[in-house]
Amino acid sequence: MSNRRDFFKWAGVASAVSVAAVTRHALAAIPEPHSQSSAATMPALQTDAAHYQPVVTLNGWTLPWRMKDGVKEFHLVAEPVVREIAPGMKARLWGYNGQSPGPTIEVVEGDKLRIFVTNKLPEHTSVHWHGQRVPNGMDGVTGLTQKGIQPGKTFVYEFTARRAGTFMYHPHADEMTQMAMGMMGMWITHPKTPHPLISEVERDFCFLMNAYDIEPGSFTPNIMTMTDFNLWTWNSRAFPGIDSLNVRLNDRVRIRIGNLTMTNHPIHLHGHEFQVTGTDGGAIPLSARWSEVTTDIAVGQMRQIEFVADEEGD
Amino acid sequence: MSNRRDFFKWAGVASAVSVAAVTRHALAAIPEPHSQSSAATMPALQTDAAHYQPVVTLNGWTLPWRMKDGVKEFHLVAEPVVREIAPGMKARLWGYNGQSPGPTIEVVEGDKLRIFVTNKLPEHTSVHWHGQRVPNGMDGVTGLTQKGIQPGKTFVYEFTARRAGTFMYHPHADEMTQMAMGMMGMWITHPKTPHPLISEVERDFCFLMNAYDIEPGSFTPNIMTMTDFNLWTWNSRAFPGIDSLNVRLNDRVRIRIGNLTMTNHPIHLHGHEFQVTGTDGGAIPLSARWSEVTTDIAVGQMRQIEFVADEEGD
Amino acid sequence: MSNRRDFFKWAGVASAVSVAAVTRHALAAIPEPHSQSSAATMPALQTDAAHYQPVVTLNGWTLPWRMKDGVKEFHLVAEPVVREIAPGMKARLWGYNGQSPGPTIEVVEGDKLRIFVTNKLPEHTSVHWHGQRVPNGMDGVTGLTQKGIQPGKTFVYEFTARRAGTFMYHPHADEMTQMAMGMMGMWITHPKTPHPLISEVERDFCFLMNAYDIEPGSFTPNIMTMTDFNLWTWNSRAFPGIDSLNVRLNDRVRIRIGNLTMTNHPIHLHGHEFQVTGTDGGAIPLSARWSEVTTDIAVGQMRQIEFVADEEGD
Repeated sequence: MSNRRDFFKWAGVASAVSVAAVTRHALAAIPEPHSQSSAATMPALQTDAAHYQPVVTLNGWTLPWRMKDGVKEFHLVAEPVVREIAPGMKARLWGYNGQSPGPTIEVVEGDKLRIFVTNKLPEHTSVHWHGQRVPNGMDGVTGLTQKGIQPGKTFVYEFTARRAGTFMYHPHADEMTQMAMGMMGMWITHPKTPHPLISEVERDFCFLMNAYDIEPGSFTPNIMTMTDFNLWTWNSRAFPGIDSLNVRLNDRVRIRIGNLTMTNHPIHLHGHEFQVTGTDGGAIPLSARWSEVTTDIAVGQMRQIEFVADEEGD
Repeated sequence: MSNRRDFFKWAGVASAVSVAAVTRHALAAIPEPHSQSSAATMPALQTDAAHYQPVVTLNGWTLPWRMKDGVKEFHLVAEPVVREIAPGMKARLWGYNGQSPGPTIEVVEGDKLRIFVTNKLPEHTSVHWHGQRVPNGMDGVTGLTQKGIQPGKTFVYEFTARRAGTFMYHPHADEMTQMAMGMMGMWITHPKTPHPLISEVERDFCFLMNAYDIEPGSFTPNIMTMTDFNLWTWNSRAFPGIDSLNVRLNDRVRIRIGNLTMTNHPIHLHGHEFQVTGTDGGAIPLSARWSEVTTDIAVGQMRQIEFVADEEGD
Repeated sequence: MSNRRDFFKWAGVASAVSVAAVTRHALAAIPEPHSQSSAATMPALQTDAAHYQPVVTLNGWTLPWRMKDGVKEFHLVAEPVVREIAPGMKARLWGYNGQSPGPTIEVVEGDKLRIFVTNKLPEHTSVHWHGQRVPNGMDGVTGLTQKGIQPGKTFVYEFTARRAGTFMYHPHADEMTQMAMGMMGMWITHPKTPHPLISEVERDFCFLMNAYDIEPGSFTPNIMTMTDFNLWTWNSRAFPGIDSLNVRLNDRVRIRIGNLTMTNHPIHLHGHEFQVTGTDGGAIPLSARWSEVTTDIAVGQMRQIEFVADEEGD
C-alpha cells in the first residue's frame, strides 16, 4: 500500500504546501490506482450511471473512478512507463498509470471531482487541466498556482466539471522534459442534458498527437529536440501500430484530437468532408461551421471533427 | 504509339491489379497525351461546351480532354520533367505531361470522368484525388486501395465529379520522394448550375505552394529535406519568375491556393481585404465568413480567397 | 536639428524619388521625434481629443502626435537601439524612436495622417502599413511602390485611416535583416463612431510576437536564422521580463496580438475561454465567432481576442 503511505506522508506536510487543496475528503483513504499494461485500444468504459456515449481512446483506455460521498474520485499516478510505440519498438517514457499517454478521464458536466495525483517520478510534477474552468489554486502551474508535487507525494485536485467539452491534461512542471517524455492525457466532459451544439453520435473517438526523438538503438526520447522529431505518433503510437477507427456505414462519427507536439499538424480525411464542431473552448455555433477535408491543429489546440460515414469502405 | 502499347500491356494484367478499374471503356484506345514545354502562364482553356469561367493556372496550364460516349477523358503522364523554376534556373523534377506541377484538370459537377494515368517514372506511382468523393478503389492510395502503377503501365481512374470545388491531385506512392520531386496538380470542379455560395467572378486563378531543396550547382531536389528548404515556390516557380495575377479595376477575383509544402504557409495580400470563401471541403456558408489580409494555409489544405479589386494599382 | 536638415536634404532630391509623396505639407517643418528609453509598459496615451479607450502596449509605448492643419503628424525614426530583452540582458537591435518594437501608433477612423520616417540606419528602409488600405505609392514596398529611404533621409507617408482595426507596420526593404533585427510596431485605428462589431472594453492591450537568435556572449541577432531561434519574445521582451496584463474582476478585456516571428505561434489562455473578434482584415461577424482557449496566429496575422475576466485570480 505504498500509495496510501505516500499520501499520508504528504498529508503531514500539506499545510505548508497548499492548504486550499486539503479538505476532510482528501484525508480519507485514496482509491487504489488502476494501471494498464497494453497499448491496444480498450473498449469504452461503460458504467451503470452513464447516460452518455463513452469515448474510445485510440490505443488507449479510460480511467475507472469511484463515487465517494457524491464526489467522483480518480487516482492518477505519474510514473516512468514502457510504451510499445509500434510492434517491436518499446520506449521508456513517462506517463500515468502504466501508459503514455495517460488514461482518458471521462466525466459529466456538473460532476464534483477529486483527483489524487501521486508522483512516482524522480522530480516534482503537477497536473494542469487544460481548457477547464477551475479555481486558480487547482490550475496546476508550478511556481504560480501551486508548489510542485514532490517525488513520493500525492496531491489532491478538487473542482467541479463546469463546462462540457474536450480537454487535455499535462504537467506544468519542468514542461520541456515531462511533455517530451510523454506526460499527457485527454479529458472528456459530457453534457448533463442534451446540448443543442453537441451531437449524439454512434462513434466517439479521441487521441492526442505527440512526437518523440528516439535515436535508433536508444529507448529514451531526446528531450532537447524542438523541431526535428523522428517519431510522429498518435497517443504515443506510430504506424503500423496505430489501430483503425472502425465504424459502420452511416454512423455519425466524432473524433476529438488534441495536439501536444511542438508544431502545427493538419488532420486530413479521405472520402468524406467533415465539420469542426468544437474546440477546447466549447462547441462551435452552427452558423460558424464549415466543411473541410483537412483541419489544422496548432500546438495546444483541440478540435472535434464530425461527419456521417456514408461512403462504403473496402 | 508507346503509350497505347503500354496500355495494352497493362490491360493484360489488369485482372490481377484492380478489376473494378477495368471497364469496357478503359479497353478502348486511350487519348494521346498533351504535353507542355513552357513555364509561362497559359491562357484559360476555353471550350465550346463550357458555360463556366475557366481558371487561369499561375505559370501553368489546363489539360485538354476529349468526350467519349458521354465521358470526359483525360490522359496524365507521370514522368521526369525539366522545369524552369526561374529564368536561368532549370531543375530536374518529376511531374505530369511535361511540367511540374501537372496541368490543372477542370470539369463540371456531374461529369463522368475517365482519367488514364501512364507511368513513365522509374518506380510505381498512383494518383490520389485529394478532397473528392470517389469510390474507395479510385482513391489512389497504394497499399490500401490499389497496387501501384508499375513503370510503363497505364491505370484508368473512373468516377463522377460529385462535388463542386477546388481540389488537388498527387501520388500516394513513395510520397516522400514523389511529392518532394514535384508531383502534384490542381483540380477544379465547376458547379453545374449557379451555386448560392460560389460567386461568379471576372478572374479565377489557381496555384499550389510547394518547396524544394536544390543545392547550388545541383539540378535535382534533395528529397530527404523535411524542414530546411531553400526554394519556396508557387507552382514550382520562384521569384522573379512568378507571373503577376493581372486584373481590371473592380473585377471580382478568386484565387484558389493549395499548400503541398511541408509546413503551414500564410498568404498575405496588400491593399485589399479578402474573404476565404471555400476549402477543399466545400464552400463556406456566408454566416461563417470573415475578412482577412493574411490567411494561413496548412499542409494539404486548400483555400479559395475572394475580393473585389476596387483599389487602383500603379 | 539634424532631423530637419536631413529632411531638407531629402526634399532636394524628392522629385527624383517619389513625386507623389511630396506635397506642400511635407515641406513644412517636421515634428521633433519622441524617443523612449525604457522597456517598461507605459501608461496608455490619453489625449484631450480622444473619445476612445486608448490601448496599453505590453512593455511598450504609444507615439505622441501633433495636429497640423487638420492632419495628425507622427515622426518615426528608424535607428539602432539597445533593447532590454529581460533584466540583465540587453540586445543591440534596430527599431524606431529608441525601442524595438517601435511605438504603437493610435489613430481614429477618418483621420488624415502624415507620417515622417527618418532613416538613421546604415542602409535604406521603408515602412509598410500592413493591413491598411492606402494609396499604392504609400504602401512602402521598396522596388515596387517606392525607392528605399536612404540613410539620413526622411520620407513622408500621407494617407487617411480608412478602416478601424488592428494593424502592424514594418519595413519592406531588406526584410530578412530589418525584421530579424526588430523593426516592427503596432497600429490601432479606433472606430469614429460606435461599431456594432467592436466592443467597448475596460482593458485593451496589444503586443507583437517576435523571435531572435542571439548567442550567449553576443548582443546582436543572427539575422540568417530561419527556424531555430533561441529567444521567443513578446514585443522584444522575454520571460521573466514580460509585464503581466492586469485587469479587474469582470472587466471586458481585449488583447490584440500580431505575429512577426517566422512560424505559427498559438496563444493559450488559462482559466477563461475567449473569442477571436477581429483580424487585420476587420471585425469578425458575430455569427462567425466561436470560443477557444488557444488560437493559432500565423506569420503576418493579427488576432483580437476578447473575454470577460469573471474568474478570480490569486
